[in-house]
Amino acid sequence: MGNCVFCEIISKKIPSSIVYEDEQIVVFMDNFPINPGHVLIASKEHYSNIAETPTEVLSNLMQMVFTVESALWRSGIACEGTNILHSNGEAAGQDVFHTHFHVVPRYSDDGFEIAYGTKARNRDELDKAAKMITNSLAQFK
Amino acid sequence: MGNCVFCEIISKKIPSSIVYEDEQIVVFMDNFPINPGHVLIASKEHYSNIAETPTEVLSNLMQMVFTVESALWRSGIACEGTNILHSNGEAAGQDVFHTHFHVVPRYSDDGFEIAYGTKARNRDELDKAAKMITNSLAQFK
Repeated sequence: MGNCVFCEIISKKIPSSIVYEDEQIVVFMDNFPINPGHVLIASKEHYSNIAETPTEVLSNLMQMVFTVESALWRSGIACEGTNILHSNGEAAGQDVFHTHFHVVPRYSDDGFEIAYGTKARNRDELDKAAKMITNSLAQFK
Repeated sequence: MGNCVFCEIISKKIPSSIVYEDEQIVVFMDNFPINPGHVLIASKEHYSNIAETPTEVLSNLMQMVFTVESALWRSGIACEGTNILHSNGEAAGQDVFHTHFHVVPRYSDDGFEIAYGTKARNRDELDKAAKMITNSLAQFK
């Protein structure tokens, strides 16, 4: 797939530190980790995003995400918490357009932060958004 | 479950804007959204974290995460990208100890950022971390 860096990692054209691989999935260290021990769980096939990824592959990827997350806690790597992160689309920070999930070990004062919201929205606004998503969800049933 | 705010939302003791619910899962708007349309997907049962959550529930939660993510794109809410976020443990920013996942709509210049790493680690260090996680993973096989 052209210049996809993950496809090049998977085909061993460029070096990487692989944790695990099978027919469908590869787990390898992020070369630019948020914290030491930051792992990526990716499909072996090239899918640009989760919408393109077959349900079965996505399901196996997520099982592996949770298994790797558990393994991380017991690995000896500094880990007092974990984040599971996924970015879909450039506006969301996706930089490699090949389906993958991040598992990031966390510890106090590691300097990384997810800035969850601090300002409550009013109920009317939240109800309106809920209704828009409920209506959209109905198309998937 | 004591003072769990999500249990109180699920039992309708405190108000919320619910998108969807079934026997196992509830989807509702985050009262403190990162962006408008920020949704939470939670188990109905109280589990403090994903390690305590039965595999089947976790699997259904993730299916719902991906369905909600797809629905969000088509909902009419501003959405040029999405993040799927999960925090496990206080050190990772978990503030409600009841299993849940965030789906956050994103758009250019929305002011939110996931600060993925920018500094490459050396290969020896990455290989060492990979080996520690591979060894830990072997315990789960």
